[in-house]
Amino acid sequence: MAQKYTYAFGDENTEGKADMNNLLGGKGANLAEMASLGILVPPGFTVSTEACVYFFNHKYTFPPKLWDEILSRLKDLERSLKRKFGCTENPLLVSVRSGARVSMPGMMDTVLNLGLNDITVRGLAKSTKNEWFALDSYRRFISMFGNVVLGIPGERFEAILSKKKSKRQIEFDTELTIQELKALIKQFKSLVTRLTHEEFPEDPLQQLRMAVEAVFNSWNTERARTYRRLNGIPHEWGTAVTIQSMVFGNMGDTSATGVAFTRNPATGEKKFYGEYMINAQGEDVVAGIRTPHSIEKLEQDMPEVYQDLVKVYQKLENHYKDMQDLEFTIENQKLFLLQTRSGKRTTASAIKVAIDMVNEGLLSKREALMRVPANQMDQIFHPTIDPKAKLKLIGKGLGASPGAAAGKIVFSPERAQELAEKKEKVILVRMETSPEDIHGMSVSQGILTAKGGMTSHAAVVARAMGKPCVSGVNTLDVNAKRKKCTLGNLQLKELDSITLDGTTGRVIKGSVPLIQSRLTNNFTKMMAWAGEVRSLQIRANADTPHDALMARDFGAQGIGLCRTEHMFFDEERIFLVRKMIVAEDEKTRDEALKKLLPIQRGDFTEIFKVMEGFPVTVRLLDPPLHEFLPNTSAEIKSLAKEMKVSPGTLGKKIEKMKEVNPMLGHRGCRLGITFPNIYSMQVRAIIEAACRLVKKGINVFPEIMVPLVGHVSEFKIVRELILEAAEEVIGKTGVDLKYKIGTMIELPRAAMTADEIAVEADFFSFGTNDLTQTAFGLSRDDSGSFLNEYLEKGLLAHDPFVSVDQDGVGQLISIAVEKGRKVKPNIHLGICGEHGGDPASINFFNKIGLDYVSCSPYRVPTAILAAAQAVIQEDS
Amino acid sequence: MAQKYTYAFGDENTEGKADMNNLLGGKGANLAEMASLGILVPPGFTVSTEACVYFFNHKYTFPPKLWDEILSRLKDLERSLKRKFGCTENPLLVSVRSGARVSMPGMMDTVLNLGLNDITVRGLAKSTKNEWFALDSYRRFISMFGNVVLGIPGERFEAILSKKKSKRQIEFDTELTIQELKALIKQFKSLVTRLTHEEFPEDPLQQLRMAVEAVFNSWNTERARTYRRLNGIPHEWGTAVTIQSMVFGNMGDTSATGVAFTRNPATGEKKFYGEYMINAQGEDVVAGIRTPHSIEKLEQDMPEVYQDLVKVYQKLENHYKDMQDLEFTIENQKLFLLQTRSGKRTTASAIKVAIDMVNEGLLSKREALMRVPANQMDQIFHPTIDPKAKLKLIGKGLGASPGAAAGKIVFSPERAQELAEKKEKVILVRMETSPEDIHGMSVSQGILTAKGGMTSHAAVVARAMGKPCVSGVNTLDVNAKRKKCTLGNLQLKELDSITLDGTTGRVIKGSVPLIQSRLTNNFTKMMAWAGEVRSLQIRANADTPHDALMARDFGAQGIGLCRTEHMFFDEERIFLVRKMIVAEDEKTRDEALKKLLPIQRGDFTEIFKVMEGFPVTVRLLDPPLHEFLPNTSAEIKSLAKEMKVSPGTLGKKIEKMKEVNPMLGHRGCRLGITFPNIYSMQVRAIIEAACRLVKKGINVFPEIMVPLVGHVSEFKIVRELILEAAEEVIGKTGVDLKYKIGTMIELPRAAMTADEIAVEADFFSFGTNDLTQTAFGLSRDDSGSFLNEYLEKGLLAHDPFVSVDQDGVGQLISIAVEKGRKVKPNIHLGICGEHGGDPASINFFNKIGLDYVSCSPYRVPTAILAAAQAVIQEDS
Repeated sequence: MAQKYTYAFGDENTEGKADMNNLLGGKGANLAEMASLGILVPPGFTVSTEACVYFFNHKYTFPPKLWDEILSRLKDLERSLKRKFGCTENPLLVSVRSGARVSMPGMMDTVLNLGLNDITVRGLAKSTKNEWFALDSYRRFISMFGNVVLGIPGERFEAILSKKKSKRQIEFDTELTIQELKALIKQFKSLVTRLTHEEFPEDPLQQLRMAVEAVFNSWNTERARTYRRLNGIPHEWGTAVTIQSMVFGNMGDTSATGVAFTRNPATGEKKFYGEYMINAQGEDVVAGIRTPHSIEKLEQDMPEVYQDLVKVYQKLENHYKDMQDLEFTIENQKLFLLQTRSGKRTTASAIKVAIDMVNEGLLSKREALMRVPANQMDQIFHPTIDPKAKLKLIGKGLGASPGAAAGKIVFSPERAQELAEKKEKVILVRMETSPEDIHGMSVSQGILTAKGGMTSHAAVVARAMGKPCVSGVNTLDVNAKRKKCTLGNLQLKELDSITLDGTTGRVIKGSVPLIQSRLTNNFTKMMAWAGEVRSLQIRANADTPHDALMARDFGAQGIGLCRTEHMFFDEERIFLVRKMIVAEDEKTRDEALKKLLPIQRGDFTEIFKVMEGFPVTVRLLDPPLHEFLPNTSAEIKSLAKEMKVSPGTLGKKIEKMKEVNPMLGHRGCRLGITFPNIYSMQVRAIIEAACRLVKKGINVFPEIMVPLVGHVSEFKIVRELILEAAEEVIGKTGVDLKYKIGTMIELPRAAMTADEIAVEADFFSFGTNDLTQTAFGLSRDDSGSFLNEYLEKGLLAHDPFVSVDQDGVGQLISIAVEKGRKVKPNIHLGICGEHGGDPASINFFNKIGLDYVSCSPYRVPTAILAAAQAVIQEDS
Repeated sequence: MAQKYTYAFGDENTEGKADMNNLLGGKGANLAEMASLGILVPPGFTVSTEACVYFFNHKYTFPPKLWDEILSRLKDLERSLKRKFGCTENPLLVSVRSGARVSMPGMMDTVLNLGLNDITVRGLAKSTKNEWFALDSYRRFISMFGNVVLGIPGERFEAILSKKKSKRQIEFDTELTIQELKALIKQFKSLVTRLTHEEFPEDPLQQLRMAVEAVFNSWNTERARTYRRLNGIPHEWGTAVTIQSMVFGNMGDTSATGVAFTRNPATGEKKFYGEYMINAQGEDVVAGIRTPHSIEKLEQDMPEVYQDLVKVYQKLENHYKDMQDLEFTIENQKLFLLQTRSGKRTTASAIKVAIDMVNEGLLSKREALMRVPANQMDQIFHPTIDPKAKLKLIGKGLGASPGAAAGKIVFSPERAQELAEKKEKVILVRMETSPEDIHGMSVSQGILTAKGGMTSHAAVVARAMGKPCVSGVNTLDVNAKRKKCTLGNLQLKELDSITLDGTTGRVIKGSVPLIQSRLTNNFTKMMAWAGEVRSLQIRANADTPHDALMARDFGAQGIGLCRTEHMFFDEERIFLVRKMIVAEDEKTRDEALKKLLPIQRGDFTEIFKVMEGFPVTVRLLDPPLHEFLPNTSAEIKSLAKEMKVSPGTLGKKIEKMKEVNPMLGHRGCRLGITFPNIYSMQVRAIIEAACRLVKKGINVFPEIMVPLVGHVSEFKIVRELILEAAEEVIGKTGVDLKYKIGTMIELPRAAMTADEIAVEADFFSFGTNDLTQTAFGLSRDDSGSFLNEYLEKGLLAHDPFVSVDQDGVGQLISIAVEKGRKVKPNIHLGICGEHGGDPASINFFNKIGLDYVSCSPYRVPTAILAAAQAVIQEDS
């Protein structure tokens, strides 16, 4: 049999069903499903996504037989409806609608009322005995076709319509007279001719062909591509096209069009929820040209239709076992369903709906767990932009840390602090942030940067702080000195207000209203269910007692990564740290280290206390030492004075320590090998803190982690050093302390030689950030200039710093897991990169059998849910 | 049987042989071998390297039974020689000598005349009837033991001796009277007591035990560790210790000591070659206290002994089938051999000896090929320091580019050029070099840098230019502005003379005489033999017609890496390149590219012509674009003027393009993807050049190589771009051109997904430099601060930028080879990193079945020979 590209639906002859959405798109598949359920839908047929894929792969041409197939389907439709396409007496009109595998609301195009021209419009008037309706449909068709198919900005048609209305001093389109509609149609058509240099196409078949092509092409608009990239939808899927006979909500006061949710999408409340508009077509509701009525009013307006609608929605919800988002049209008191799909909802709503449906017996617990998007779990902690607010988008970047924030912009951390002390809400705007900006970040509502990806400094710190952040806004240029910035063509100065949406990456003009979320009992219940199912343990990355406490509250079962370097940046300590680094002799260095020891011990004591009963993995110092050194001449001067050297000498020393590629430089365990006293001090601080707590009867399980090991010999020498320092402390205190010594696996060479390293190590923690950087040869700090283009062009399906690259980086991890377990079957394996909070990555880590993932505290609920979902998916 | 740690040698009871050098060290094994051959050697025994390894692994203690074993061996020796250790009448004296698996001349310690004390010295005088000799031996023993075992600087003893001689106004030690010797012994002993606060040990057994320990410990002196590191000898081997009965060359005019080579080590001439000294012990010859006689004179002095020596040397050469380096002692006209080993020789000598021995029927061609150290083949092209010259070493770095150079130092490329125009020989001294220094490097005799390793810019460029370079001299600090530098404590200013030895990394004060080498027929013959054996093809890395020609002359079978970026730095072009980079619009960029096209075409035309009949692999632009941009404000100003923008705007643009980790940034094929026009221009230049030559009947085989591919999608998109540009040119010219499109495999991710990439690629060229950097997470530019320490401490056995890391990087390459061949069995595989010229790496590449290696032109003979040796080793 030759390949078939079209699938019919309608009461007689329905060929599709709901699970054929890959082929028919969500819309086409669900129309077929509804038809099979006996729900009234206007009959039609769907051109499959395969035709669209063919179209793009063959220089924008249809598959050979497609047009014939469409014509033949059209004939079937004419027969069944007893109307004829292009007929002058009783014409058949169709809508041409897009439909992707997964819903991309508002992203692609639709044309309604197709088939009208100067002749058929008269036939329509005649057959419906409603000339006003026919003309109204025609003017709608011309503007919609003109916009979608011919590329004329919708505003041009709007302007003509507005002018006409203001001249007549009327408010609504429905008040236009027949004469005015006729004039409008003429004006619309001449606008088309003026702008396209061609007559408006009168041939209905030509209209149809052009519309199908336009819908195909709408798959590749800028906004559609961006939407897919942000939502991880592959560009190669393509869209289906549904060609459906028209029903009309604009046939007068017995007709209407509407949308509804079977439950409240914002809260999850079990209550039918929606809006409708009398004498209107679909786009009127969306465009907001009149205020629609709440769905309850329909019960009074058309009680029978309302009862039909209630029956239909209950049937659909029971059938799909999920909250549905419906589109319907009432044509002369007759209800037609035009679409049903799973309703988009807030996370709070998703959780409530899922739990309610378990209680209603519609879902099992496992099914309910699959219904909440793990990736959006942290939405529940963050404010969101009020969905009712009108937004003026002025920039777009990466949604680097979720949540929304509004405030006045500032361009320096100092200014941020100054204003924050005066209780101003500020947004810190920088080209990129550095460790010295942290105090400014911590007092800001949100952070906006021009450079950097999902794992840039700004993004990582913001997520750790739970602050919204939009990073990598290419159109942003900051002039911090002059306290201004440009966003594309827009100039902004200090104290101008903006709003950030760190979930989607939007930058919005002015301060828009935000909604605060709250943890609920439902959330707690959902987490408990997930806990019963998952096999991965979930830990958190936390460097402070505050973060550790938050992580524990969210359900973390330990700290998987406690970075000691952030502790070094504290204002009181940085001076000692710098002294230690630039010391010319061991004595000066050891003096500084001696002073740092009790401070570090204090840090660990607090974290261990908070995490009582759980393991805490402390990573020894990792970043290149020059990161701690001063940059400004004032700071250099002050340090030089203290060190009793000339600022010139010190400056030269600092200069000499700078590196060409610091990411690949003198850092990680390389520091511990060349400056063993630094690591010894840290180990003593950890073990002393632990021993003192154990003495007090507090259970602590320290795990000491060595960063950036590339060769087993590095791990061996550092392990010896750790053992020596630790055993000395333990010997002195006489405490029976259990502790582990393990390593990061974050270099390809470490992964390839994991069998050698496993002999020595108690645990591996995969540092997927650095492993991604080294496996790809890609600096996350520098990828901004091309990574977006890679994602746009589909060279990479995902940002590998967000979702682990399973083919490459994942293969390295798998090899290391296999090699490690081969020599030490009980070696404890986890990951502590940014990927620890990404559901797709968690799925992968579950599959390859890691013991735990560790992520930022705010991502712990995401990780818990994703870990459960991974098990459910694996089992199914 | 319990483990045995000692092995006897001597006429009666010899337990070792030559191939036991792993256990007995070269010295011990060859003494045993000579004894078995019936050559007279003073009997003794060797403590095995296993004892030394035990000693280091057990906190400097002997294996439990070792001392008893030594005592028992000593008894055997006493029996056989009829003398007694510590005996007051006829005492046995021994030497305690070090001996590693492979010769480390002068690196470790030896003690002679051991067993003497205030009492035995009288016995020795009595039994030999030679009091002067006994006392001379005693004073030698005290100073040698004092130095080697007790750690007293040899100069302290020397000073006392010199004072005594100058007081007496005598020149030679032999002129000292008995009384004077006695006084000297007293003074030596009181020096020891003064400095060690203990009496000189009189107990011969205590002396022996201390001497054995001292020889063990001499394995780990700074100089020994450095020597091993530079020569790739593992630290864990340890040394053997040979305890041998003394024979005496200082018993008067019938006694002597000497060293000899069986052929000339500098030229290979087949002529016995050596020196001896009457009435002397071994160290006198080395120390040069008297001028020794040439070996020919021995024929007159002691004709019978000379005949014995001739017989012995011929026997040894025939037995070992190699040129030998002998040590002998004549005691009262009786010849004893103390050592034989394979003689160190220049490369020219090694080649001549090997070929002569084939002609003499001693060696097969394959054996002869194994006799020339491949690593030193390029010595033959470079001047070397006259071995007779006296050197004052003032610094030590990496031998980054072989050969010696002498000249006046300058600190800027401009100054280098200025002086070179006046025919001055200059050495360029820099903290590190950058592409802008190239013109200065090209006119200098040699390059000296403070920073950077074997693959730093200075090292790579210098090797490509065939210029000596010493890099990474940690003690060097350059103040270019003030035109001076310090080397440790030494101050040098512009125009001071120094000499560099780029083979060993030595920096020498003043201008010392150099010897120029020349290619010989022997060299050509050796290369031809290697060609018959090897299976790897050898290509060269060459960016200019000059380099290509040289490579071809040396036997290269193609260009494996033609870097196009070096072409961009040419003075005439850099301006166009910069214009192209900072262009704000496509038009300006395309204009600049259009002007670059004919220039690049010219480059390729010349290289293709030179390489007629051979493949030429051209790598498309690789480095980050900001590398090409100006740094000085003058240059920025001039470019800004040309571009008609303000210098501020341009400066900002340049600033914005700088990267945190340029190695992992916007470079390689990432450039080709974001700026496709650059690659298109390059492809057009390559293919136009090739087509024009083919039309003229010249055979060219261009291979276009895509750098830094990490994901198959990158290669696909660039391949499409290449095909499009290439086919357009080919279509226009109508030439039937064969060309290939392949990729570098230089990122771990590319190696892991090589099967996906192989589907698309005609060839892989492993970029082992970048693959090493990314697999290790190690920037070659920044590794200077710790890599040396790693090598010193034995954390790494080799510098992975010199010899490929087989365990890690090699594993990645092997995986890629396997995956690539699995999907495309005939895919062409090679490497083009620095490792292509390293014999150990070539051995590995041969083993894993690559098709070719590509290295710098000067390394081509090394690679040819190493490839042959790899095959021979694999076969054996």
